[in-house]
Amino acid sequence: MDERVREHARVLVDWSARVTAGDDVVVSVADGAHELAVAVARELGERGATVTTLYDSAEVTRGYLRGVAAGEVDVDDDQSVDRALYEAADVVLRLGGGRNTTATADVPRETRRAYATARQDVREARMAADWVSTVHPTRALAQQAGMSVEAYRDFVYDAVLCDWESLAEEMAQLKALFDAGERVRLVTERADAPNTDVEMRIDGRTAVNSAASVAYDSHNLPSGEVFTAPYATEGEAFFHVPMTIDATRVRDVHLVFEAGEVVDVTAAQGQSAVESVLETDPGARRLGELGVGMNRGIDRFTDSILFDEKMGDTVHLAVGRAYDACLPEGESGTESAVHVDMITDVSERSRLEVDGEVVQRDGTFRWEDGFEAA
Amino acid sequence: MDERVREHARVLVDWSARVTAGDDVVVSVADGAHELAVAVARELGERGATVTTLYDSAEVTRGYLRGVAAGEVDVDDDQSVDRALYEAADVVLRLGGGRNTTATADVPRETRRAYATARQDVREARMAADWVSTVHPTRALAQQAGMSVEAYRDFVYDAVLCDWESLAEEMAQLKALFDAGERVRLVTERADAPNTDVEMRIDGRTAVNSAASVAYDSHNLPSGEVFTAPYATEGEAFFHVPMTIDATRVRDVHLVFEAGEVVDVTAAQGQSAVESVLETDPGARRLGELGVGMNRGIDRFTDSILFDEKMGDTVHLAVGRAYDACLPEGESGTESAVHVDMITDVSERSRLEVDGEVVQRDGTFRWEDGFEAA
Repeated sequence: MDERVREHARVLVDWSARVTAGDDVVVSVADGAHELAVAVARELGERGATVTTLYDSAEVTRGYLRGVAAGEVDVDDDQSVDRALYEAADVVLRLGGGRNTTATADVPRETRRAYATARQDVREARMAADWVSTVHPTRALAQQAGMSVEAYRDFVYDAVLCDWESLAEEMAQLKALFDAGERVRLVTERADAPNTDVEMRIDGRTAVNSAASVAYDSHNLPSGEVFTAPYATEGEAFFHVPMTIDATRVRDVHLVFEAGEVVDVTAAQGQSAVESVLETDPGARRLGELGVGMNRGIDRFTDSILFDEKMGDTVHLAVGRAYDACLPEGESGTESAVHVDMITDVSERSRLEVDGEVVQRDGTFRWEDGFEAA
Repeated sequence: MDERVREHARVLVDWSARVTAGDDVVVSVADGAHELAVAVARELGERGATVTTLYDSAEVTRGYLRGVAAGEVDVDDDQSVDRALYEAADVVLRLGGGRNTTATADVPRETRRAYATARQDVREARMAADWVSTVHPTRALAQQAGMSVEAYRDFVYDAVLCDWESLAEEMAQLKALFDAGERVRLVTERADAPNTDVEMRIDGRTAVNSAASVAYDSHNLPSGEVFTAPYATEGEAFFHVPMTIDATRVRDVHLVFEAGEVVDVTAAQGQSAVESVLETDPGARRLGELGVGMNRGIDRFTDSILFDEKMGDTVHLAVGRAYDACLPEGESGTESAVHVDMITDVSERSRLEVDGEVVQRDGTFRWEDGFEAA
């Protein structure tokens, strides 16, 4: 076993999930993540945790959902077993990494949506535990990234095995600005793409310093972003970075917001996949997240949201569910069965403003060398 | 996909587990049983059941248990997540079929035992559901059986895809004899092996017509045996059929019983593995099962208890836990964290008696042509 698989397991269990003796841990294993599951189980055993492993195979899910469609049955929204197991869990570790990223491409979209909606309380129970998502570098993910598997492994481990404490310190500066601010405006004016000029409110919301640890309310490994839960969004936004939604390739999405809701959508490719997301439920038309990628260890887009949205010089907006960590105790933000991130390149001719003050211009933050205030 | 995989899934879901709409089904998937899991998920979706898939990988278990041993931690006997999930389940389908049958060979035996003991209430919660175990024909199992994978697939599907209704009718005759009887005696007198002459009480116990369906209190697919829960065992028994216990090869086991307990054990190979089983807890020294194999579709031993114990012309005894289905309501039989079956060949120079009457001689039952009463 590559020694980096063991290190990955240790970072996940210790830095990210903070597992201690007696914790009841659910490990969800994608069908290509076997090797990481073995390493994680080893660490959990050594720490005196209990472990329950779920098989998260896209092909099994496809089989199930095609059965649902063929049998014309309603998806049961009383998912008692999954709810019970997540409610009993202290920690949930999701090991992604399938063997075919388009394994569910031939599942009817409405069946997939119905399944996501039926499982909303399962999702909530899972997110009430200390959950962390990570990914094992499989051939399928390497292929999606357009890379050899060896180069892709280097890419993943460079992103995962970084100095999380230093990055957390830098990100704390942006979190402080967001926490004190009332409005964020994002502007891009590039010659090669439609403009973005979108403004949203963030007052009353708390930003998360997403340093890949539940201790920071951060649930992805790798991470490296600061995000909050915006509302009352107005304007238009263009997303330069291609993505995959429900196994459909999506490119050049443009959204128009009025009074906090998406009122118009276009895309050069995959427009109907975006429309289908927006039609899931009322919350799917509202923003759940504004995130600023600050991990400069991630040096390229790989068509994986776990990495892409963390890349330095990017900003992302997500339609759908807001994370509780950004909301005041007892208050709810956007509620939805979905959460879909879309990414804008802010490396050039762009600015991010908090209450009218520029905090990042052309990818450079105000605390960095070379920053131009105006 | 081999059409027989789909038929296997249908027999499992319909004949064996009797799944209906709204059932909450846990599917436990060994790491070589992916293809069967896909087919089973398809059938469950079509019938309107919910599905939760567990990853039952021997390599993950090995990683965990070696971590436990290295960390010198006690195995937590509060396995809340597993208990909660099985308690919420209506049906549990266990899809066996690993990729290496000796994957846990280097786990310290005491760690494995401690784990089994800590998980006794998980096991009980699982067995309170409508559970069925089956196996997908993997290369590892073919190798253990000394067969090519193609021949092994034929072997498995011949055993699984049989006429269960007819076999159930034949087995009902032996069940009737056991239910009415008070004592069973098993005798073998072969020139090439030590003799067996063991007597046990079965009065007050109910035999199971194990026809591979929960409707018959039968939990294995394939099946084809009649079994009950004996007690007050006296005498000695020799087991001609080799087996594997905790990844250790075991051959020619000889047990001596006094007042219901094993008081002496020898084996030509793997004796310490048997001794370790017997030392698990007090129940591990008592019989939990007397079973008579009646599936003549199984034509050879393959070192897999799921098949071997069902083969025609065999009788097996298990030390450890008795099945509730054999016990009067509210009464407990042998309680133990283990249940280990051992098999005797009764094809020649043997007889099985109920209350002094021979019901099977040299493999032929009294209702069959060629039976010799004396």
